[in-house]
Amino acid sequence: MDSATALALTIASGKEPIAVHFDYRQRTERKERESFGALCDFYAIASRYIIDLGFFAAIGASALTDRSIDIPQNVGKGIPITYVPFRNGIFLSIAAAIAEKEGASEIVIGAVEEDSSGYPDCRESFLRALESAIGLGTRETTKIAIAAPLVHLSKKQIVREALRLNVPLGLTWSCYQNEDKACGVCESCRLRLKGFALADSIDPIEYLL
Amino acid sequence: MDSATALALTIASGKEPIAVHFDYRQRTERKERESFGALCDFYAIASRYIIDLGFFAAIGASALTDRSIDIPQNVGKGIPITYVPFRNGIFLSIAAAIAEKEGASEIVIGAVEEDSSGYPDCRESFLRALESAIGLGTRETTKIAIAAPLVHLSKKQIVREALRLNVPLGLTWSCYQNEDKACGVCESCRLRLKGFALADSIDPIEYLL
Repeated sequence: MDSATALALTIASGKEPIAVHFDYRQRTERKERESFGALCDFYAIASRYIIDLGFFAAIGASALTDRSIDIPQNVGKGIPITYVPFRNGIFLSIAAAIAEKEGASEIVIGAVEEDSSGYPDCRESFLRALESAIGLGTRETTKIAIAAPLVHLSKKQIVREALRLNVPLGLTWSCYQNEDKACGVCESCRLRLKGFALADSIDPIEYLL
Repeated sequence: MDSATALALTIASGKEPIAVHFDYRQRTERKERESFGALCDFYAIASRYIIDLGFFAAIGASALTDRSIDIPQNVGKGIPITYVPFRNGIFLSIAAAIAEKEGASEIVIGAVEEDSSGYPDCRESFLRALESAIGLGTRETTKIAIAAPLVHLSKKQIVREALRLNVPLGLTWSCYQNEDKACGVCESCRLRLKGFALADSIDPIEYLL
């Protein structure tokens, strides 16, 4: 939902996106890849990269990529077990390589800072630091900004933006656990459902509960 | 040679390394992986990661990863065609994830700034910026430094350090082009041979020319 809304905002501003999907062996990869394809089709994006990051399974250390760790239903304070070590750092570094090759001027990410799970790699301070590093680690002529249009929005505001932009929310997926019907109880489902409830709207995807 | 010397310096300082090899579909992957294994055996490093980055072939844009671009023999000014977009940014981001998972306090890289090919992702300014980004994008309790012990050394000084530390230089590989006998004429061979010549020493590996 966040990626799709960030994409819709990018297109609305007149830019031509290159779409990048990461297969990091997360539990819901099949469904997320299906959503990626459907969203690219919906927005008629021809330029697509599907990046295979099978090594995440070897690193593990997260409930999203290690099947021996259950997805929690209630998340306490601090960084939850669904945190994947430096995941967005890796995603953005690869996106920087693609952007440099393609001559793209911006990397767009649907990261959300406040109304989220508290992942350190979703913070704007991190994104700005990595943007500086990308500037120093690429050609002098390469200028790549990191845009995070949702980073300071609440989930309610994201749902409102998505509705305003007619994002096909039925094609998006947020559940950490399931691929057919969303579980409704994982942290990601809870945040999504809270956003729809506060925005006085109904989530079009199917839930188990 | 640079990685092996950085490794030897790390071991000499009493640290316990975890070794990481990246298969980014570079022309000399088979030989580099063999060198990686032989060096790990030599230094009795049990903890090893081999990270498959097949997507570099799809990004291309470098003579190291795109077979349709020849390896140049004479490199002019500016960044050469052997530059792989943001390669070290990607390598270091993945190393950061491994370090965070393993509880390691340092990432060691054999990057060389001055006496090198002029790759932007080998500059100390880049390494320090990425170190800051890694600090902001990982857990509060995670503290990962980037150590680049060779970054301001010349190739001559690197060869001297390697000899002082008894690095098994015959097990290392630098050639961009070949896997059996080094070509002797690519930029990487030239820099290596220059280092040995200025250090009044003989390179133990075999060359075609």
